[in-house]
Amino acid sequence: MAVQKNLRITEQLEAWVNDNKGHAVLGTTAQYIPALGKVDPGKLGICMIDEDGNYYCAGDTDVEFTLQSISKALTFVALSHHYGLEFVLERVDVEPTGEAFNSIVPFEIHRPNKPFNPFINAGAITISSLLPGQNAQKKFAYLKGFLEELLGHPLEIDKEVYDSEWATSHRNRALAYYLKEAKFLELEVEEALDIYISQCSIKVSVKDLALLGLILAYDGYNPITKVKHFSEEIAQVTKVLMVTCGMYNSSGNFAAHVGIPAKSGVSGGIMGAVPPKLHSQTYEFRAGAGIGVYGPAIDVQGNSAAGTMMLRQISKEWDLSIF
Amino acid sequence: MAVQKNLRITEQLEAWVNDNKGHAVLGTTAQYIPALGKVDPGKLGICMIDEDGNYYCAGDTDVEFTLQSISKALTFVALSHHYGLEFVLERVDVEPTGEAFNSIVPFEIHRPNKPFNPFINAGAITISSLLPGQNAQKKFAYLKGFLEELLGHPLEIDKEVYDSEWATSHRNRALAYYLKEAKFLELEVEEALDIYISQCSIKVSVKDLALLGLILAYDGYNPITKVKHFSEEIAQVTKVLMVTCGMYNSSGNFAAHVGIPAKSGVSGGIMGAVPPKLHSQTYEFRAGAGIGVYGPAIDVQGNSAAGTMMLRQISKEWDLSIF
Amino acid sequence: MAVQKNLRITEQLEAWVNDNKGHAVLGTTAQYIPALGKVDPGKLGICMIDEDGNYYCAGDTDVEFTLQSISKALTFVALSHHYGLEFVLERVDVEPTGEAFNSIVPFEIHRPNKPFNPFINAGAITISSLLPGQNAQKKFAYLKGFLEELLGHPLEIDKEVYDSEWATSHRNRALAYYLKEAKFLELEVEEALDIYISQCSIKVSVKDLALLGLILAYDGYNPITKVKHFSEEIAQVTKVLMVTCGMYNSSGNFAAHVGIPAKSGVSGGIMGAVPPKLHSQTYEFRAGAGIGVYGPAIDVQGNSAAGTMMLRQISKEWDLSIF
Amino acid sequence: MAVQKNLRITEQLEAWVNDNKGHAVLGTTAQYIPALGKVDPGKLGICMIDEDGNYYCAGDTDVEFTLQSISKALTFVALSHHYGLEFVLERVDVEPTGEAFNSIVPFEIHRPNKPFNPFINAGAITISSLLPGQNAQKKFAYLKGFLEELLGHPLEIDKEVYDSEWATSHRNRALAYYLKEAKFLELEVEEALDIYISQCSIKVSVKDLALLGLILAYDGYNPITKVKHFSEEIAQVTKVLMVTCGMYNSSGNFAAHVGIPAKSGVSGGIMGAVPPKLHSQTYEFRAGAGIGVYGPAIDVQGNSAAGTMMLRQISKEWDLSIF
Repeated sequence: MAVQKNLRITEQLEAWVNDNKGHAVLGTTAQYIPALGKVDPGKLGICMIDEDGNYYCAGDTDVEFTLQSISKALTFVALSHHYGLEFVLERVDVEPTGEAFNSIVPFEIHRPNKPFNPFINAGAITISSLLPGQNAQKKFAYLKGFLEELLGHPLEIDKEVYDSEWATSHRNRALAYYLKEAKFLELEVEEALDIYISQCSIKVSVKDLALLGLILAYDGYNPITKVKHFSEEIAQVTKVLMVTCGMYNSSGNFAAHVGIPAKSGVSGGIMGAVPPKLHSQTYEFRAGAGIGVYGPAIDVQGNSAAGTMMLRQISKEWDLSIF
Repeated sequence: MAVQKNLRITEQLEAWVNDNKGHAVLGTTAQYIPALGKVDPGKLGICMIDEDGNYYCAGDTDVEFTLQSISKALTFVALSHHYGLEFVLERVDVEPTGEAFNSIVPFEIHRPNKPFNPFINAGAITISSLLPGQNAQKKFAYLKGFLEELLGHPLEIDKEVYDSEWATSHRNRALAYYLKEAKFLELEVEEALDIYISQCSIKVSVKDLALLGLILAYDGYNPITKVKHFSEEIAQVTKVLMVTCGMYNSSGNFAAHVGIPAKSGVSGGIMGAVPPKLHSQTYEFRAGAGIGVYGPAIDVQGNSAAGTMMLRQISKEWDLSIF
Repeated sequence: MAVQKNLRITEQLEAWVNDNKGHAVLGTTAQYIPALGKVDPGKLGICMIDEDGNYYCAGDTDVEFTLQSISKALTFVALSHHYGLEFVLERVDVEPTGEAFNSIVPFEIHRPNKPFNPFINAGAITISSLLPGQNAQKKFAYLKGFLEELLGHPLEIDKEVYDSEWATSHRNRALAYYLKEAKFLELEVEEALDIYISQCSIKVSVKDLALLGLILAYDGYNPITKVKHFSEEIAQVTKVLMVTCGMYNSSGNFAAHVGIPAKSGVSGGIMGAVPPKLHSQTYEFRAGAGIGVYGPAIDVQGNSAAGTMMLRQISKEWDLSIF
Repeated sequence: MAVQKNLRITEQLEAWVNDNKGHAVLGTTAQYIPALGKVDPGKLGICMIDEDGNYYCAGDTDVEFTLQSISKALTFVALSHHYGLEFVLERVDVEPTGEAFNSIVPFEIHRPNKPFNPFINAGAITISSLLPGQNAQKKFAYLKGFLEELLGHPLEIDKEVYDSEWATSHRNRALAYYLKEAKFLELEVEEALDIYISQCSIKVSVKDLALLGLILAYDGYNPITKVKHFSEEIAQVTKVLMVTCGMYNSSGNFAAHVGIPAKSGVSGGIMGAVPPKLHSQTYEFRAGAGIGVYGPAIDVQGNSAAGTMMLRQISKEWDLSIF
C-alpha cells in the first residue's frame, strides 16, 4: 500500500518537475558569488517527506548545494533554542521590510533600535554573532552541531563557496560595519562575517531541507524519531518569518500563490514546511510534510525560478496553503 | 448544552476583557481625525461567532464605530469578486513594505509599476477607484451593496467622521495626486478620495466584524446561511494580506504573537478570521471563528492597544494561531 | 566708440549662438507641460545688458516665453523685500538638496521644520503662499506689480500655459497637500497653487531676464535708472541660492564650469547675474552685467541644453565666473 | 604704516574673538573620535594673511590640531593637479547633496555612477584612493609632499588621533566597502582608509590654514613667494565646492550669511579663501586674504560653533562675501 502511494505521489512529482524545468530560463545562477555562478542552471529537484518518514523525490535530487539564506531560519531557531525566544526578539525584530535584503537605507532612515527581522542580512549577521560560544569558531560549531542533531548526520562547509563569498562580500562587510557603528554587533565584524559566511556555505541536499521543513511543520518535533528539538513557540515564529519574509521581496506573492511557509537561498534551494491540515480538500500530505527544492537558476528576487513555479503548482493541486 | 458552552466561553471572554481593559492607557484615540479623537478611549469589547452562528460577546459591544482601514480588506474582496483576482493583482501588488501606511517614499525611491499592496493607503485608494460603476457614487454604492449582502442588513456612513476626514486628509490628497501623476489612478483624485473616505466612514459593530471574519475564515462561504459570497482564492489572498500587512507596521509581531489573520483600523476596530484547525490543542473554535474587537485607544502603530493585547491572550489560550 | 564696442561684442555673441545652437539636440522641450512641449526646440537667443543700459543681443531674441522656475528667485526677492529677509528665512531654509526639485522623499525622511530652500517646488509654493495680500489674487497682484516696477513695463500671463499647468500639475498638488499636512502652508492648497502657477506663466523676453539679472548683480540697485529696488542682503542671499540651487541638480556643475549666479526654468529661460569683477582677466563686462538666455530644448536636469553650453563658453572667454 | 595697519586689524580681530568666544557653548568637541573629544572646548583663535604675507592673529593661535575634513579640499587639489581636473571630475561629481556627509542612503536610492562630490566621505575616500603612488604609503606621501610644498615646512601626523579614528571609524569602513561593492574603489578598502585617516590626522595651525586659504584665493598662486602651485581652474572648482558643500549641511546658510569659500573639519578648524574684491565697500583685505580659524566646540552640523559666528561678524563688517 505504502509503496503504491509513494509511487503515485512520486510519479506526480516527476511530472511536475518536467512541467516546470523549463522555467529555469527565467533565472540565472547567482553571478555575484563566482562559485555559485558556475553551476548548471538547468537542474531541478524536489524531495518531500511525510510524518512517517517516507521520502518522495523527483528530478535532480543527488546534487549537494549550500544553504545560503536558508541558514538564516536555522540560526534563528538555534539561537532562540539556546537563549529563549525573548532574548532574541529583544535584539532582532520580526517585521517585514519592502527593501532589498542587503539594504542600508531603512537603517539610516528609520534608525530602528534593532534590525527589522532575522531574514535580512543585517538581522542574520546579528543573530549569528549572538550564537553561544567564546569566539567565531565555537559559535559556528554550536550551530553546526545543532543542525547535525536535527539531521542525524555530519555536515560540511563547501570551502570553495566560503572562499568565494569571503572575497566578494563587500556589501555584507558594509552592512556589518554599519551594524557595528549602530552598536547592534558586539562581536568584531570579521568574526561575525566568518560565522555568517560559514553558515551560508554548509552543504545540504533536498532530502535534508525536506526533513528540516518537516520538523518546523511539526513545531520543533520530529515525528519519525519522536524527538522534540525545539519549542512550538520558536517553530511558530520561524514560520511567521518564512511567510512574511522568507522569499525575499516576493514573499507576499509567494504567500498569496503558494501559501507554504518557506525559506529560499541564492544557491537555488527552498525549504518548505507544510503543517498538518486535516480539513484539506485533498488527501495528499494532510498530516503535513517537509519540502526540499533545488533549482539554481534564481529570478531577480533571488528565488529559484523553476522551484517557485513548481511549488505553486504543487500547492494548488494538493491544497497545501496554510491560508 | 449549547447555552452552557456559550456561557463558559462568554465568561472567559469577559474575564479577558477585564484583564486587558487597562492596556488602553498604552494608546490614545486617533487625534488626527477630530471626530475619532473625541470618543471614550477606555472602551473595550469583543464578539466571536462560530460556524453555527452563535455569538460570544463581552465588554462594550453596543458601540458603533467606523471601518477605517478595515475597509481596505473588504474593498479588495469586493473588487476581486467583480473583476477577478488577476485583474486586481495586475494593478496592485501584494508585497509588504516596512514603510508607514501613508508614505510616499517607497514610490519615489523604487518607482514601482503598481502600489505595493492594497492595505497601504496608496493601494487602497487605487482599489477604491477601480470599483465597478460610472462615477464615485455608483462605485461606492457597489461596495456598500456588497457588504450589506455579506452582513444581511443595511449600512450607513457616519457623516460626522466623513466630514472630519474629508477636511483633514491632506496627506491622502498628497498620496492620491502622487498616484494620479504616476498614472495609477484613472479616476479624478477628488472622486477617488470620496469613495475612499466613504468606505472608511461606514458604521459597523463588533458583531459585524465577527461575521465578516467568519466568512473570510470559511473562504468566502457563510456557514450559517450556506451562501458562497466569493471565491476561496480571493479569501486566501485576503488572509495573506491580513497576515503580512493587516496590522500596519506591527503586522510581523502580531503574526508572531497572535497568528490570526486580522485587519485593524484607527477607529480601534479589529476584524479577525480564525480558520478551522482540527488539530488544535484546545477545543474552542476548532471549526473556526470570526472575531470583532473594538478598543478606540490606538498605539503608535495604529492598532487598538487593549484589543491587540487581548487577542494575544485569547490566541495563546485557545491555540488559534494559523502558524 | 560705444557703438563699435557694442558691435564687436554683439558679433561675438552671434558667433557663440551659432556655435552652440546645435546643442539643442541634447535636450527636448518640456513634454510634461503640453503647452511648453510644442514650441520650436531649435531656438537659441541671448541678451546681455551692461551698467549703462546697453543691450547686446544675438539669436532668437524676439520670442516671448514663460518664467517657470525663474519666478522662484523673483518671488523670494519680492517676499523678502516686503517682510524682511529674517521673516522669510524663518519659514524656508537655504540649504541645497541632492534630490529632485519636486521630491517628497527628503520631507518624509528628514522631517525638516521648513522646506530646504526656495528653489525646490516645496519651498517655492510656500514662498508664494506667504506673499502679502488677503487672497491668491491679491498676492499674485503684489508679485506682478513688484516685477513690473523692476522691468518698467506691464506683464501678462500666458493663459494657455497656465491652463496647461493647472490641469497637469498632479505632482505639485501632491507636494502642496504634503506641505499643508506638515503645516508649512497656511493658505488653502488650491489658492497657493494658483499663485505658483500664475507666477510660472508670466511672459518675459530675454531682455527682461537680462535686466533682472543686472539688478541682482548690482545688489538690488538699477544702475541705469539709479533706483534701489531691494536690499543688498536680499540680493546676496538670492545669488547664493542661484549658485547652490539655481540650475536644478546640475547647480554644482554649472557653478564649476560657468560660475555665474543663475536661475533656469523648464521653458528654456536662464537669468544670469554677473557682478562687477574689477580684477577680471578680460575687459568685457568688468563692471558686471545681466544675462537673459532662451533655448527651449531642456536637458534631463531641466536646464536649456544649448543655453547652458553657450554660457559655459561665454563665461570662460570673458572670465565672468565669480569663483 | 604697515605696523599700524596690522595693529588696528589685529586689535579688531581680538575684539571679535572676545565677542564670539562664548558661542563655544553652542557646541561640543567631537565625541565620536575619543582623541578629539578630550580637548579644551573653550578655545578660539584666528589668523588672517594678506597678499604681502602679513599675518593678523588673535586668540588661541598657538594650538596644533588635525585637518580632518579640511583635508578633503586639499586632496582634491593634489589629485587634480597630478592627473588634471577632467580625470577627477570623471570619477567624482561636484553636486551638493542634502544628506549627511557619511550617508549611504543617496547611493542606494540614486545609484549614481560616481560619488556626489569630493567633500562627502564617499567622494573623499575615492579621491584619496586615486592619489598617485603604488600603495597607500606612497599615495599618502605624495599628498603630504604636495602640502609641505604649499606650506614650506614639514608636516606630521597626530598618531593618537590616527589610532583613535582607525579604531572607531566603523561608519567609514561601511561606506568604503559600499564603494568597493559599487566598483568606485580600485584600492583595497583598508588601504584607502589608511590614506584617508592619515590625511585627516595631519597636524596644522591656524597660520597654515590661512596660507592655504590665500593660495586658493589667489587661484593656486602664492603672492608672497610668487610660486604658481596649481591651475586657476582647479582653484575655482575647489572654491565652488567650498561654497556649495564646504560647511557640511549648513553650507547654504554659511554662504548666505558669510559668503566666504570655506572648508571646515570636526577638529574645529576652518580654512577660508577671500578672493580679491576691488569694489568692496571697505578697505580691509580688498586684495584678498586667507583665513585660518580654530574653535574645537562644533555644532550639530560639524562646524566650529564659535568660529562660524565669528566669521559671520568679520565678513559682514569687512564686506568679504563673494556674493
